[in-house]
Amino acid sequence: MPETLIKVDLKQSPYENEKIHNRWHPDIPMATWVKPGDEFILETYDWTGGYIQNNDSADDVRDVDLSTVHFLSGPVGVKGAEPGDLLVVELLDVGAKDDSLWGFNGFFSKKNGGGFLTEHFPQAQKSIWDFHGLFTTSRHVPNVKFAGLIHPGLIGCLPDPKMLAMWNEREVDFIATQPDRVPPLANPPFAKTSHPGSAKGELAAKIGAEGARTVPPREHGGNCDIKDLSRGSKIYFPVYVDGAGLSVGDLHFSQGDGEITFCGAIEMAGWVHMKVELIKGGMAKYGVKNPIFKPSPITPQYNDYLIFEGISVDEYGKQHYLDVHVAYRQACLNAIEYLTKFGYSKAQAYAILGTAPVQGHISGVVDIPNACATLWLPTQIFDFDIRPTASGPIQAVKQGIEMPLSPDL
Amino acid sequence: MPETLIKVDLKQSPYENEKIHNRWHPDIPMATWVKPGDEFILETYDWTGGYIQNNDSADDVRDVDLSTVHFLSGPVGVKGAEPGDLLVVELLDVGAKDDSLWGFNGFFSKKNGGGFLTEHFPQAQKSIWDFHGLFTTSRHVPNVKFAGLIHPGLIGCLPDPKMLAMWNEREVDFIATQPDRVPPLANPPFAKTSHPGSAKGELAAKIGAEGARTVPPREHGGNCDIKDLSRGSKIYFPVYVDGAGLSVGDLHFSQGDGEITFCGAIEMAGWVHMKVELIKGGMAKYGVKNPIFKPSPITPQYNDYLIFEGISVDEYGKQHYLDVHVAYRQACLNAIEYLTKFGYSKAQAYAILGTAPVQGHISGVVDIPNACATLWLPTQIFDFDIRPTASGPIQAVKQGIEMPLSPDL
Amino acid sequence: MPETLIKVDLKQSPYENEKIHNRWHPDIPMATWVKPGDEFILETYDWTGGYIQNNDSADDVRDVDLSTVHFLSGPVGVKGAEPGDLLVVELLDVGAKDDSLWGFNGFFSKKNGGGFLTEHFPQAQKSIWDFHGLFTTSRHVPNVKFAGLIHPGLIGCLPDPKMLAMWNEREVDFIATQPDRVPPLANPPFAKTSHPGSAKGELAAKIGAEGARTVPPREHGGNCDIKDLSRGSKIYFPVYVDGAGLSVGDLHFSQGDGEITFCGAIEMAGWVHMKVELIKGGMAKYGVKNPIFKPSPITPQYNDYLIFEGISVDEYGKQHYLDVHVAYRQACLNAIEYLTKFGYSKAQAYAILGTAPVQGHISGVVDIPNACATLWLPTQIFDFDIRPTASGPIQAVKQGIEMPLSPDL
Amino acid sequence: MPETLIKVDLKQSPYENEKIHNRWHPDIPMATWVKPGDEFILETYDWTGGYIQNNDSADDVRDVDLSTVHFLSGPVGVKGAEPGDLLVVELLDVGAKDDSLWGFNGFFSKKNGGGFLTEHFPQAQKSIWDFHGLFTTSRHVPNVKFAGLIHPGLIGCLPDPKMLAMWNEREVDFIATQPDRVPPLANPPFAKTSHPGSAKGELAAKIGAEGARTVPPREHGGNCDIKDLSRGSKIYFPVYVDGAGLSVGDLHFSQGDGEITFCGAIEMAGWVHMKVELIKGGMAKYGVKNPIFKPSPITPQYNDYLIFEGISVDEYGKQHYLDVHVAYRQACLNAIEYLTKFGYSKAQAYAILGTAPVQGHISGVVDIPNACATLWLPTQIFDFDIRPTASGPIQAVKQGIEMPLSPDL
Repeated sequence: MPETLIKVDLKQSPYENEKIHNRWHPDIPMATWVKPGDEFILETYDWTGGYIQNNDSADDVRDVDLSTVHFLSGPVGVKGAEPGDLLVVELLDVGAKDDSLWGFNGFFSKKNGGGFLTEHFPQAQKSIWDFHGLFTTSRHVPNVKFAGLIHPGLIGCLPDPKMLAMWNEREVDFIATQPDRVPPLANPPFAKTSHPGSAKGELAAKIGAEGARTVPPREHGGNCDIKDLSRGSKIYFPVYVDGAGLSVGDLHFSQGDGEITFCGAIEMAGWVHMKVELIKGGMAKYGVKNPIFKPSPITPQYNDYLIFEGISVDEYGKQHYLDVHVAYRQACLNAIEYLTKFGYSKAQAYAILGTAPVQGHISGVVDIPNACATLWLPTQIFDFDIRPTASGPIQAVKQGIEMPLSPDL
Repeated sequence: MPETLIKVDLKQSPYENEKIHNRWHPDIPMATWVKPGDEFILETYDWTGGYIQNNDSADDVRDVDLSTVHFLSGPVGVKGAEPGDLLVVELLDVGAKDDSLWGFNGFFSKKNGGGFLTEHFPQAQKSIWDFHGLFTTSRHVPNVKFAGLIHPGLIGCLPDPKMLAMWNEREVDFIATQPDRVPPLANPPFAKTSHPGSAKGELAAKIGAEGARTVPPREHGGNCDIKDLSRGSKIYFPVYVDGAGLSVGDLHFSQGDGEITFCGAIEMAGWVHMKVELIKGGMAKYGVKNPIFKPSPITPQYNDYLIFEGISVDEYGKQHYLDVHVAYRQACLNAIEYLTKFGYSKAQAYAILGTAPVQGHISGVVDIPNACATLWLPTQIFDFDIRPTASGPIQAVKQGIEMPLSPDL
Repeated sequence: MPETLIKVDLKQSPYENEKIHNRWHPDIPMATWVKPGDEFILETYDWTGGYIQNNDSADDVRDVDLSTVHFLSGPVGVKGAEPGDLLVVELLDVGAKDDSLWGFNGFFSKKNGGGFLTEHFPQAQKSIWDFHGLFTTSRHVPNVKFAGLIHPGLIGCLPDPKMLAMWNEREVDFIATQPDRVPPLANPPFAKTSHPGSAKGELAAKIGAEGARTVPPREHGGNCDIKDLSRGSKIYFPVYVDGAGLSVGDLHFSQGDGEITFCGAIEMAGWVHMKVELIKGGMAKYGVKNPIFKPSPITPQYNDYLIFEGISVDEYGKQHYLDVHVAYRQACLNAIEYLTKFGYSKAQAYAILGTAPVQGHISGVVDIPNACATLWLPTQIFDFDIRPTASGPIQAVKQGIEMPLSPDL
Repeated sequence: MPETLIKVDLKQSPYENEKIHNRWHPDIPMATWVKPGDEFILETYDWTGGYIQNNDSADDVRDVDLSTVHFLSGPVGVKGAEPGDLLVVELLDVGAKDDSLWGFNGFFSKKNGGGFLTEHFPQAQKSIWDFHGLFTTSRHVPNVKFAGLIHPGLIGCLPDPKMLAMWNEREVDFIATQPDRVPPLANPPFAKTSHPGSAKGELAAKIGAEGARTVPPREHGGNCDIKDLSRGSKIYFPVYVDGAGLSVGDLHFSQGDGEITFCGAIEMAGWVHMKVELIKGGMAKYGVKNPIFKPSPITPQYNDYLIFEGISVDEYGKQHYLDVHVAYRQACLNAIEYLTKFGYSKAQAYAILGTAPVQGHISGVVDIPNACATLWLPTQIFDFDIRPTASGPIQAVKQGIEMPLSPDL
């Protein structure tokens, strides 16, 4: 078994683990070092560091302090890595921790970050998903079972000071355009809940003051939430600092394209088994700005889909210009409406779109003024036939099962 | 052989063919009638009605009058279809016309509609693609060959007067928000180049004055440019008028998600072999607003991809809020930059993204402020290895081949 | 459109068409010549040359003279091809003739060739399959519809005299081991029904006397009946004579692995669009004795299967030693028995296994004394659920439909 | 984590573990009991019980006593299971033991069981395969890496006395037809090395005297070595005794169709996570004699193959009648010859065919006198291009690496 270089104890606060951090900053000390060619394992907390529990209340989803996330394992220093290189990371395997074979999905309250459909689901809700080997089911969402497309939602290398400065300037300026918005347009550095890894004293304070929050994906990758970055895939990351500083966390047992429920996919604690190599000078050789990757040869093979279309006219009839975000929202709303005809609650339908291996395609982006997006719902994950027939939908979904909801206080 | 209910003669102007129309309007006379259960064939012009030629000049792409498009075959009346039904359309097969085994892809001049990357490719360019049975190659884009994912870019049923009024109001109001924009935000009715099918006199004038332009996808489907609506798929269309009035056109031999080059996919004249059925009252039974569909069991099976990420910070460094359109543009620009390292011109790379069976996924839309989109480039369509290696890219692409470019006059 | 180098008129006897032949012999005159790099089209008869008709009687299957088959289009001479080369053939497309959009499947009478399950189906039966674009259905086999995996059952190059002599000696000697067997162990040359292409007089007589029958696959390929040699595939054929002499015929709209019904797959008249290239000296360079090929990127993608096992103990309880033929027969009989539980007749079930894109895998061949073979039945071709459930099989199959049967006279 | 009902200690002899057995007999005591709906885990030895070691000598492959195999975990009693039921087993996951992340492949000496190509590889050889998460590589077979298609080679329920008697009679009679054959035609009961689980005294002696050897697949399933019975699949087993008595072992990290190397696939110790259900009376309801199964939605997705054909004329030129075993052997020999052109030794090529996710299809079984079989070699498992080109094969395979060989003493 390759060595586990970072271990996590789910009973311990992530703040007590010096090999965990929750900000991006070039000065976060390397938690461990490896050489090109090495295979190793990193354990990870779930993105909230254990705040969300396996129970039937959504209070934790309502109350979670989002300034604490994401708890990442790393940074891993790679000997010989220099700015301008590409760090090649093979995700040889990814799994849940044996003592934590479950995950959660939830919708944040609109007041606490909301989500893609927050206007339609303004209050905190949660579903718990149990893992059965390669598969998952939920006691809160009946009649659906699917194989996990296991992946890290968040992975990337440390920024250098120049890139960090650019991020902070870009996002702080952006927040300033609508400073009172709820939820905010972006999240600025926030020292109070910063976890700077093993940094102490002044260095820790500096990281707290300057460290970029981990929420958005950025040039280095980071919180991309790309479901296809799954175990078995191979990723080429830009390197900005000596040693690269690779960190990973926010593992998902499964997710639909878009991670539309925001909290999030099926979120879990777990481990990542990986191998690293270098392409020296690879950023210039291949013209790489953002990470690129090759998908895994082993992913769930659902190929019978029901596909929903959406255009960039919003649910209130307003015209938007080639706006794929709006178009995808319409496709999602259309799919939710459809699923309710078989007996699902809207919340359950939304949870399915957030967790199952749903594809979201950018189908048309030039036919002014309407973008067209499609949502691909795999039919084989349901234990009944969801396809349209002349006789109409059957009421197959078990009734009396609800997703926990916790209204704002 | 099922009957060919609509024939087109590529040497004849589409305006002379009464079973062709280029506007959406409830009063366009049915070109032909069928019964549920019928199989039949419709021939179609290419979307420009033959304006773009198989030659080595992009003058036609530069000069085409976009108020004339799209030339559609239909409407086909379906006996018994009533508002509120779902019209089930099986695309049993789709192909090019035997006397026209080629297609075109182009970029419009920025002054004439532009495209997804019009800031980067502001002038008219064209590539011609020859069909070799199931495959296509281009004399203007070397070292690439792929199987066609043949589909109609545009298909849908006639709107009723209420829906037509809503479309026109919505879009005309939208244009009014930036009336002088080039290209415009949307296209209003335009009588001069209207083709109302077999309508004559006052009826033709009415259709010309009120008929919705065919460019955008709308609630009825229409110009969705969804590559996966390919031959073998089964579509469920909302019905708004008695007889449904199904029209189809804008056939594509292949297209990447987004149809980013706008002019367009690999555009061709051809034929569609289809079968229709009805689900009575299906719109309410299944809560359907936009069309839904099941994909084909026969599509090109490329499964080895190189995937490019993009986030919603634009190419000038500007921050956008969860804007998938911007994110996908960055992924496309990243892929173009990458392909140039192997010897392609930027225009050739752009043409590949517009024509090959490229996937565009909405990967993350909740991680404020950045959306994340991915572009999936199939590696097996190239006759050399495009994957990153430690030794760097080889110069495999044949040099001295260029895509025709026609500067604005 | 590439040139159609060989045309067939389905109303004309294949014996009257000089570009058709039904024996393998080095002296059959080339019907046409092409150059490496050429694309061209060959039309073909169905394998029986039109003997089997689209009707509801199996008399023709019972009475067909199998000494006449297979009617092949060719040979096509390829300029520059020499013995020892590999002839690279791309099957750019394959289709049915527009005036013949149907095919047949049948079981021969045991007295006239029989088939894989001739002990269980000793009498002639037939089913007719209609083509609906990419799909097929049969009026004799209800509740099943599938996409065609279109391919030529028979394709290969002319043998040289030495190879021909080896074939004849090998097979004639083999027949001599059980000379009175019905059906015979093999088919020797048979002059009476020989069609030597354009050869006349003495040459025709020589070909009739020596020409190898086309029934078995041999070193050159020939009647391999490999369903995966489908349109879009690329085949590397050994070349034995100057000019190669490529012939093709026996087109199938679809077939299950094994072509177990023998008469045969879904047999059809049609056309093949192909392109040829050469690898000079390729047989030695790559150590090639039998053809090799790359499968098509476009084939029906059914991925939900019900898989039946069989072992090499025959249906009468007799033990055979690692005999995959016996094991596959058991898997087929198991599948037939299973399908009857849903209401199919045994003959209909057998026809489905012979025509649908069924896979036959050699699963274990070393575990003495039993080989294990598996038959993979795609579940998505049925319009009802064929998977086992606790409630038992539903009687979904439409009753009162039978496959024509013609007893021996 | 579901409970691990059977544990194995790889440092302990399997004969000392009472929950292991190596014979089929109705009287083997249940090792543990479960209820329908239960999930549980069984650990397993490798099939030889740890005899083959992770080293660079093939002495162990040469010397292994095959009368000891296979060491199975079980039998598991399922409450309520009765003869005539179908036992539904979901393989929720299968993996290697954490302390044993490697497997072996070997060829037996012809004197000790041989294998599919024993005439060509008459001496014992071995390769060791290391597991890297989802992937495997071998220090003895360079330039190849693939994802594991993990599965149990052997799984099934206990026979009842009548079935056991039939097996023994059938096989003993068969041995008697060539009693002096080396290797023998089959393996009779053999008391000396019998492991009867927890049975003692007279019962143990009875099991030793009567217990069927585990080598061949039989009506109940057993040693089917079906690579597609992989983790994620769902199997329906006939039940013959009260409680069913499910046993499993012989885990494979990967295997090619046929398990042609016999010793075997990539053999490993590991664990199986499974769930059981019952279909009461299912054998009659569905007409099931041998097990049936549904394949997994998660398996390696290699779809670019090079396919080799073989016909039933053996390598010495002898004609066989529709013999798929001979045909598949020719296809294998053709593939081995081909791979040597790139620098592999014949033994390495043979090992690749035995271990990689190679498909073996029964392509034609009716075209007298020749069967046709195909071997599908995935091209994406090699780190160089193995496809034929006009320039001939490159010498890409690292030289100086050999598979250990141990001549017979």
